[in-house]
Amino acid sequence: MAQKPSTPKGTRDFNPLQVQRRNYVIQTIKRHFELYGFMPIETPSFENLSTLMGKYGEEGDRLIFKILNNGDYLNKVDEDLLNSKDSNAMISQLSDRALKYDLTVPFARYVVQHQNDITFPFKRYQIQNVWRADRPQKGRYREFTQCDADVVGSNSLLQEVDFIKLYDDVFTSLEVNGVTIKINNRKILAGLAEIIGAADQLIPFTVALDKLDKIGEERVKQEMQERGISSTALEKLQPVFTLTGSYEEKLEAMKGLLSSSEIGMKGIEELEFINQSLKSNQLKTATLDLDITLARGLNYYTGCIFEVAAPDSVKIGSIGGGGRYDDLTSIFGLKDVSGVGISFGLDRIYLVLEELNLFPDSVSWCRCFIYQFWRDGSCTLFWVVVSLSRKRN
Amino acid sequence: MAQKPSTPKGTRDFNPLQVQRRNYVIQTIKRHFELYGFMPIETPSFENLSTLMGKYGEEGDRLIFKILNNGDYLNKVDEDLLNSKDSNAMISQLSDRALKYDLTVPFARYVVQHQNDITFPFKRYQIQNVWRADRPQKGRYREFTQCDADVVGSNSLLQEVDFIKLYDDVFTSLEVNGVTIKINNRKILAGLAEIIGAADQLIPFTVALDKLDKIGEERVKQEMQERGISSTALEKLQPVFTLTGSYEEKLEAMKGLLSSSEIGMKGIEELEFINQSLKSNQLKTATLDLDITLARGLNYYTGCIFEVAAPDSVKIGSIGGGGRYDDLTSIFGLKDVSGVGISFGLDRIYLVLEELNLFPDSVSWCRCFIYQFWRDGSCTLFWVVVSLSRKRN
Repeated sequence: MAQKPSTPKGTRDFNPLQVQRRNYVIQTIKRHFELYGFMPIETPSFENLSTLMGKYGEEGDRLIFKILNNGDYLNKVDEDLLNSKDSNAMISQLSDRALKYDLTVPFARYVVQHQNDITFPFKRYQIQNVWRADRPQKGRYREFTQCDADVVGSNSLLQEVDFIKLYDDVFTSLEVNGVTIKINNRKILAGLAEIIGAADQLIPFTVALDKLDKIGEERVKQEMQERGISSTALEKLQPVFTLTGSYEEKLEAMKGLLSSSEIGMKGIEELEFINQSLKSNQLKTATLDLDITLARGLNYYTGCIFEVAAPDSVKIGSIGGGGRYDDLTSIFGLKDVSGVGISFGLDRIYLVLEELNLFPDSVSWCRCFIYQFWRDGSCTLFWVVVSLSRKRN
Repeated sequence: MAQKPSTPKGTRDFNPLQVQRRNYVIQTIKRHFELYGFMPIETPSFENLSTLMGKYGEEGDRLIFKILNNGDYLNKVDEDLLNSKDSNAMISQLSDRALKYDLTVPFARYVVQHQNDITFPFKRYQIQNVWRADRPQKGRYREFTQCDADVVGSNSLLQEVDFIKLYDDVFTSLEVNGVTIKINNRKILAGLAEIIGAADQLIPFTVALDKLDKIGEERVKQEMQERGISSTALEKLQPVFTLTGSYEEKLEAMKGLLSSSEIGMKGIEELEFINQSLKSNQLKTATLDLDITLARGLNYYTGCIFEVAAPDSVKIGSIGGGGRYDDLTSIFGLKDVSGVGISFGLDRIYLVLEELNLFPDSVSWCRCFIYQFWRDGSCTLFWVVVSLSRKRN
């Protein structure tokens, strides 16, 4: 009986050309991660269910792929629960493990589990697959590759500066010119919520603000009002909606607005420091843009947040993002460890390179070269000369 | 509430040194795969459940990790079935997808699905993780990495010869000297079953024979008798149990035994051809050993079968295996495509290198080198000279 063969929805086969092109991007990112002093680690594809559940909000919990227990898994299920047919309540009885949803939470688990073997600050990178039961669309898959670099155990803002330069270096190296690195600071969002008297509604406030790009000023305001933010408060917020100008100009305007909020001013100060540091060490091809409406979905961020937009000519969601989180490892029992990290979305970056026709022709030639090199060490010197001269013919 | 963090049973975190050492092995294997003309493909981590079930025998079906359906998965379950609490029968209603169990079946699915885009013979390699809900033990994990190379669409025995040389090259390159490449041919096993009148019991016959190493001659004979093989038949089989000497000597002895079996003699002929071909092109550090008791578990093999044993000083199961299968793609509707392939067991090879202390000290230095090389192309020529001279200091 022949079956019609296919891959599950949201997953893909990669043919040799695609594998080589993906490797080209991965190797570029990897190389820069290592040049910036990050070391590779890997964690299992699946984690204990309890490690992941409750870390990504309700929506995230739903999108985690759970693995059915092996053996006579129904034997352990509570009879009443079985009869209730409550899918949600039964998950933890049917499944002990789940595919990882991102690299950050497993990394936090790693840091806590291996804390005695780690020297802090710990700079690690991780390039692995993650899985989400999301509805597939262009650039969104159910299995995709994340490339993460994080530093844990350092409060220095120079880490943030390094990450901005790392983004710039990688995209410059991939010849993707004109990416925008959007930056904001959760402390500024907290400050804004504070001065409009919505400090206890920080999350719904930032979620609404985050949508400004997509749904426009009026509907954002409407959503905020529905969430109980008053008209007076919204009036105070008006400068945020009409903010224009350079990084410095926007920062100046926000300074005026947030002067009465201690946490808000701390956020301003951090963004000023980063801007100063980058002045003496300018970006190559990327632009740093202060985007006060940037919120980033995940709730664990506490300081700077980043998001990278592809060049204007490519219509695709963000191709990278990250930020500082001050308390991520505390969910696993390790307190007061500050972390900051960024992620590259390999699958979307691939689409950008494809659309802009930026894959080098010589990918496979180059690989062949390197393997030879790896093998022979010094003998390759001769080979290098021969190959280079041959290339020019 | 702090949780005590851990990885699920049978899975592992890899620290930076371990990642680099794994990459050293992977890169060595990859480089040789490419030198032998194989191209990389990748398939998703999970497949449709129907793609995997029924391909690995009952035991295999049990060891496949199934993924719980998302959403209100209980809603679709048959009421009677739910009440029966029959875990096995309910699997297909609770799960549409499963983690891949090996790379071969997904590869067969790939070949059939993309047959119009493939030029045959198709030589592909694949280095990816697979998952088995096996009981963990030394060198056996629930998530592990397979490195497979296969050729489909070629009947030439020169493919088998190439694979033997590939094994030899990889292990020589890794400096693992003294591996034994055991070879046998399913046609010889079929011939033996034929001449002892157990042609319809080929599988139980080979399964019993396969255990000779572990349980010894007497218990193998006992098991065969229990499976209905007569004493007269076992007498005929006696030369198999006492086979000694060189490859050629064993082959001669088998020739006498199998002279009346057409399929058996075909197997002999194939093994003779391979031996002849290797004479003009000798192995570097590996030894080829004809092992008539070698059967290999999976039932899809039809011709030559291989298994690689680590050097005698390391006590570990096989570190590689493979063989020819003539009908694998037919389960997905593509007939008459012969395939042959081998696999490297990365996790066990890692343990062998660790035990024999064979990891180079310069792994990370070497990587750094290569990244630089990748990046700059020709400029590196200068850098090569500088680095090499620095290395000698």
